[in-house]
Amino acid sequence: MTRTVYVNGQYLPEDQAKVSIFDRGFLFADGVYEVTSVLDGKLIDFAGHAKRLQRSLDELQMANPVTEEELLEIHRELVRANGIEEGLIYLQITRGAADRDFAYPAAGTQPTIVLFTQAKPGLADAPAAKTGIKVISIEDQRWGRRDIKTVQLLYPSMGKMMAKAAGADDAWMVEDGHVTEGTSNNAYIVKGNTIVTRHLGTEILHGITRAAVLRFAREAQMTVEERPFTVEEAKAADEAFITSASSFVMPVVEMDGAPIGTGTPGHVTARLREIYLDEMRKAAV
Amino acid sequence: MTRTVYVNGQYLPEDQAKVSIFDRGFLFADGVYEVTSVLDGKLIDFAGHAKRLQRSLDELQMANPVTEEELLEIHRELVRANGIEEGLIYLQITRGAADRDFAYPAAGTQPTIVLFTQAKPGLADAPAAKTGIKVISIEDQRWGRRDIKTVQLLYPSMGKMMAKAAGADDAWMVEDGHVTEGTSNNAYIVKGNTIVTRHLGTEILHGITRAAVLRFAREAQMTVEERPFTVEEAKAADEAFITSASSFVMPVVEMDGAPIGTGTPGHVTARLREIYLDEMRKAAV
Repeated sequence: MTRTVYVNGQYLPEDQAKVSIFDRGFLFADGVYEVTSVLDGKLIDFAGHAKRLQRSLDELQMANPVTEEELLEIHRELVRANGIEEGLIYLQITRGAADRDFAYPAAGTQPTIVLFTQAKPGLADAPAAKTGIKVISIEDQRWGRRDIKTVQLLYPSMGKMMAKAAGADDAWMVEDGHVTEGTSNNAYIVKGNTIVTRHLGTEILHGITRAAVLRFAREAQMTVEERPFTVEEAKAADEAFITSASSFVMPVVEMDGAPIGTGTPGHVTARLREIYLDEMRKAAV
Repeated sequence: MTRTVYVNGQYLPEDQAKVSIFDRGFLFADGVYEVTSVLDGKLIDFAGHAKRLQRSLDELQMANPVTEEELLEIHRELVRANGIEEGLIYLQITRGAADRDFAYPAAGTQPTIVLFTQAKPGLADAPAAKTGIKVISIEDQRWGRRDIKTVQLLYPSMGKMMAKAAGADDAWMVEDGHVTEGTSNNAYIVKGNTIVTRHLGTEILHGITRAAVLRFAREAQMTVEERPFTVEEAKAADEAFITSASSFVMPVVEMDGAPIGTGTPGHVTARLREIYLDEMRKAAV
């Protein structure tokens, strides 16, 4: 099947979807992105992703070629055209095409905007949500502004490959002995009745799913501590989990080859996943 | 004028030169590059760039779609087709196009290779070589593997814009109080008869021009110290300069608004530039 994708105002078959070799996304990783999940054919937390997109663009003084309303319409048209019931919509905006120069191109250079879908049947019932995933810890070698959601994703890709090579599913990145986050998700541990996850700052992505999950946790009278935690704390935790737009709330049952807690998905994690999916399905657009 | 560029085996007009939106260079900054300068219509230190390219690819377990001989032929054909007497040839190889996934695509996925020229008449006689350039110091916020020449160039781009905003030409990046390098060049200071530049490691790019310049300096009986130097040392230096494939050896006469030495290009710098250009022209292919 050939997907219909969106490139700079046009809906195109995926094999015709191209950008200039002079695009700054290609030459300088000068671009930002968002991934929004689709459940029941509807968008999960679209407003949250649109807001973070604008923040990333603002941080990089990059123009936004579309309004939030236009962006919503493009998302919906791609969902419709590709018959997505469960899946993801990927969005990328770059500073556009210009002859190669480290300095930004002239004001008025047209930004590039690209969107495509990924069908993921069974996304909300992923088997991994029942078995949990395994992580390894690796050094965090990324740049210093991880709060901006840029396409500088080579190190997270390398981390994913390191995890695979170690027989694990993902990697948690560690800086100065403290976990920052996973390769493409935020990281949490549970000890007693307390959920611990790193505070917001330039060291981690300000997860849209993170914000919603912490809100639901507090509403459910759970205790939340937003602070750095160590690898040792993680290994001694009762439960651990990750959150992201594509994995929602996903239990982590093993770190560096050793079980976390009982080595099976924990109750707090399961409950948060259930609340998250229920609430977000209700609010989906 | 429309350039002829090279994309995956084809010579094309630049406005037809495109890559898939699924190219990992565009989505993940999963690509490496080289820039080779052209003087008198010939390639400067092609062998050095080809060797470093292979190292970058090896470090990332990325396949090389061309032999060194093929690469040389493509460079020469682009020089010929575009009538380049003085200028640059940009080369980029990515892990190729595949549906979006942090994990690398299947072995056998065809890498993407792109080359284009930039005519720079007067490159060897750049006025800045006579006046010197001004730099500011900024925090080095790049990832941890700067020895791999990847397209994760957003922070260097930001640094160049910070320099422009400050009325300077470039930025020197500083980590733990020590200068690492410029945004797209290696950094040097001269104190007395000693040239100081940061030692090789993962913190800086292993400059091809750097290697040649240090060899020429030693052959000319100059003292070279490869070690970290501080911002304070730089400000108290007699001379400072940068090296890169496109700037060769370029004097730095001001840092953070204060003159370095006399505030004019120094003798050691001028001599190194002269030797470098003379020797490399002779060895050009």
